[in-house]
Amino acid sequence: MTQTKLDPLEFRRALGAYTTGVTIVTACGSDGALAGVTANSFSSVSLDPPLVLWSLAKSAYSLPIFESTDYFAIHILAAGQVELSNRFASKGEDKFGGVAYESGIGGAPLLPGAATRFQCKVKHRYDGGDHIIYVGEVLDLVSRDEMPLAYHGGKYALPARKNLRKLVEGSTSKEFSDDHLGYLLWRAWFHFSAALQANTVVAEFTDHEFMVLMTLFYGGARSAEALAFKSLPHGPEQRASLTSLENLVSKGLACAKADEQGRERYALTDVGRAKALSAGVAAMSVEADFLERVGPREGLVLKDLLKHLILETGGGFPFPLHPGESET
Amino acid sequence: MTQTKLDPLEFRRALGAYTTGVTIVTACGSDGALAGVTANSFSSVSLDPPLVLWSLAKSAYSLPIFESTDYFAIHILAAGQVELSNRFASKGEDKFGGVAYESGIGGAPLLPGAATRFQCKVKHRYDGGDHIIYVGEVLDLVSRDEMPLAYHGGKYALPARKNLRKLVEGSTSKEFSDDHLGYLLWRAWFHFSAALQANTVVAEFTDHEFMVLMTLFYGGARSAEALAFKSLPHGPEQRASLTSLENLVSKGLACAKADEQGRERYALTDVGRAKALSAGVAAMSVEADFLERVGPREGLVLKDLLKHLILETGGGFPFPLHPGESET
Repeated sequence: MTQTKLDPLEFRRALGAYTTGVTIVTACGSDGALAGVTANSFSSVSLDPPLVLWSLAKSAYSLPIFESTDYFAIHILAAGQVELSNRFASKGEDKFGGVAYESGIGGAPLLPGAATRFQCKVKHRYDGGDHIIYVGEVLDLVSRDEMPLAYHGGKYALPARKNLRKLVEGSTSKEFSDDHLGYLLWRAWFHFSAALQANTVVAEFTDHEFMVLMTLFYGGARSAEALAFKSLPHGPEQRASLTSLENLVSKGLACAKADEQGRERYALTDVGRAKALSAGVAAMSVEADFLERVGPREGLVLKDLLKHLILETGGGFPFPLHPGESET
Repeated sequence: MTQTKLDPLEFRRALGAYTTGVTIVTACGSDGALAGVTANSFSSVSLDPPLVLWSLAKSAYSLPIFESTDYFAIHILAAGQVELSNRFASKGEDKFGGVAYESGIGGAPLLPGAATRFQCKVKHRYDGGDHIIYVGEVLDLVSRDEMPLAYHGGKYALPARKNLRKLVEGSTSKEFSDDHLGYLLWRAWFHFSAALQANTVVAEFTDHEFMVLMTLFYGGARSAEALAFKSLPHGPEQRASLTSLENLVSKGLACAKADEQGRERYALTDVGRAKALSAGVAAMSVEADFLERVGPREGLVLKDLLKHLILETGGGFPFPLHPGESET
């Protein structure tokens, strides 16, 4: 068996295939200096005694601090702590500036907002090539039920619980209905829309009328032009939204008024606002139900990915529900 | 600072907050016996020399094998290897039965299909409480561009790249348009549908007509009853799909025929099949474009989560595109 020296870049890339959480490890040196580094080399080691480990580069600026104390704190970061992670991953010297930390065992700075925090006493310092492996005994832990931040392939990630079932038992994943993005999007929206239609107020409206109603409710008065869902030059959606607007007007739920500049603007009537409020509450209730069914964390990841898809495929579509978008 | 003994269950739960990949570590003992264990205690240690580590319980059945050799292989599992992970996480003695492994350095069994595989020589064995920490020098690596399996909170997961942008810059996440699941689902489907409508064949159809066309194309002949999208008892969707069927018939794309039992079944005509084929190709093309934009791995996670949502909120909706569902 021949053995060639590993290409460091290839090795680093290969390591990226392993998904990890993101931690910040902090300590207070014997001279009172504070250290904090972002690390994804954390690993659980032992249950009895409770041990965890992480590795620090021997070349790290903060090595002398970690070497001068027997205590450190490990923060498993929550999904919202990307900025904190970036700050402690940088080489800056004033990483703690403006951070509201407390002082923990051995003076280690305790950062707020982590999903889980371990306070540790060094049990072993082991040699690990260009790193030192710190094995710490966990003296204290605080855990919050919070979506954690993950890291994979050099990018921040969220752990999405894997769905282990098929839409139809016995189907192969190659089948259209089980694997086609368009079908899945339509289907998911179809379920949401159907659940929404169970509300008698919502049931009075088509999907498009509902969206126009909500746009006027959340986004405020705007022109017919700004209400058109400009999907395409020959846009069937554009026609649909204008027809929907006409329907709302004929039902007495919306009406045209001139603004200060004399431009025609459509707004909801009092009756329209009451309907919209009721429909909006129904939508929130369906959302709450769906998120509970799919799991709140999975819901968060799903929403995150849908936003990503929407942004990547938007190509000039308006965001009709956003107030800032009522055209000038 | 008082210190109370940690509750082992609480400690274990807290460790679950840290997302990990899933590995299977294998070795061949000095007597030729094979060992393989599922482990998520993997961690990268050093770049130069290239070192990685993992931990094995001192009580592990396979400990004597790992102690009798200086070589092991670490497989970072791919998303599709849940079954293999479960098999090597169990206590069974014949874990390798039926697995097409090869023999690697030091005889360590190399399993097929992993996202990344490291072959290692033990550099250090360190004490880690109730575990032994194996630090291995990486002698050989094979890496494939494959979605890896992750693990979080005691469940299998997929790492979804975190979207760091907002739909509308400057909006707060509390706003309806940036955070409402229903809006995001509608919007995502709207983008897909609009892109699809750019195809002149697809543009001849409404969303519902398109779904009925595709159902007959992929799912085969069926009754009008089986084509109704039964969303609700008072179902507007049901009416929509029946109207859509009538439209397809009047355009000469579908027609009713009696099956062997004399029951009325709707099927596509030759012209209808040609249109469906063309529309199906367009749908595949939009899918490919969307998946490229969102990223193939993110697309995989998104589809996985949509399936999960669909399954959790289905409540008796039919799956019209699946062949097995053409009713009897």
